[in-house]
Amino acid sequence: MARRGLLLILSSPSGAGKSTLARRLMEWDPTIRFSVSTTTRLPRPGEEDGREYYFRSREAFEDMVKTGEMLEHAEVFGNFYGSPKGPVETAMQQGRDTLFDIDWQGGQQIRNSALGRDVVSIFILPPSIAELESRLRSRAQDTDEVIAGRMAKSRDEISHWAEYDYVIVNTDLDKAFAELTTILQAERLRRDRQPDLSDFVRSLNREFETR
Amino acid sequence: MARRGLLLILSSPSGAGKSTLARRLMEWDPTIRFSVSTTTRLPRPGEEDGREYYFRSREAFEDMVKTGEMLEHAEVFGNFYGSPKGPVETAMQQGRDTLFDIDWQGGQQIRNSALGRDVVSIFILPPSIAELESRLRSRAQDTDEVIAGRMAKSRDEISHWAEYDYVIVNTDLDKAFAELTTILQAERLRRDRQPDLSDFVRSLNREFETR
Repeated sequence: MARRGLLLILSSPSGAGKSTLARRLMEWDPTIRFSVSTTTRLPRPGEEDGREYYFRSREAFEDMVKTGEMLEHAEVFGNFYGSPKGPVETAMQQGRDTLFDIDWQGGQQIRNSALGRDVVSIFILPPSIAELESRLRSRAQDTDEVIAGRMAKSRDEISHWAEYDYVIVNTDLDKAFAELTTILQAERLRRDRQPDLSDFVRSLNREFETR
Repeated sequence: MARRGLLLILSSPSGAGKSTLARRLMEWDPTIRFSVSTTTRLPRPGEEDGREYYFRSREAFEDMVKTGEMLEHAEVFGNFYGSPKGPVETAMQQGRDTLFDIDWQGGQQIRNSALGRDVVSIFILPPSIAELESRLRSRAQDTDEVIAGRMAKSRDEISHWAEYDYVIVNTDLDKAFAELTTILQAERLRRDRQPDLSDFVRSLNREFETR
């Protein structure tokens, strides 16, 4: 049966495994659409417009906000980031879910938008802060100052855990991934995400009448 | 981590496979407590007090309703049925889920009770009415009149499908069972069902402070 696509929001401090989980989820179900954010920051070497981000000027970004084309947007470390609304609405109508890898500011805005009732939000927690820092240090040759900035942002991010529908503690990646797919499968079974059920029950009633 | 037990309500017309699904769920997770109903109807041959039902007199039943010991109760075919509240509260405090095999009347009452926020309700639909009737006819040597009564009750039951959180169409029993366990596992991951998360996040914050 056809269903209405949902908006799956994944948030976590960086280093908690969110990006790995998001990537595995897209492989697990290729019909899921990843919401590519628009940003005003400059592309880094190897980044492609439309893949990692849509890279736009400050003016173009502000225009999109003004005309209501942004589902959410926020400023982080002096740059703007936002999620374009059009592709999300198209995916929903096609019965495709959209995955958002965004922070608590974006999560709050989407939950409070007109699409709020289609949101399923999941917060990923690290097993410990020592583990979080070790993952941050292992994946890049960042300076201590940069690491300290990331850790401060992580603490701020974690402080918003209680705004999310579900919480997964990522102690073991396979277990966390299984929990993520379980949540998505269950949410797809919610009555209000299965619009064809009304027609199906009508057909059952017709069958009662013609017995 | 410890969690608060939830109240899993399964409803469906008889013949949709609900009892089989309930029994398999109890085997799948023996910590789930089945809510044995109290009834004023007489035991049938082979039925034991406390196993199929608690068999009570009309007076004893009415006393339990008056003193608030019934989580829900209803009259069906001239007999009273109800779910005792005490064992449910005990199970919840122990972090054990309680499974209710009840009809829409009971479902409505529990959802609207003080325990309503702990309810997860699932409606099981048959693939067709022909299939429902064939299952009803195959399992008992009931008269056409009894079957007709059951079918009328089934139609009434189905009319309440839209009051449930989740809907499973039981076309294939294994698939329906997988969907049932998926829903239960996901619901256990809801933030508000994991009370220990607050302590866990406090421990993460202490770790931030002592870095």
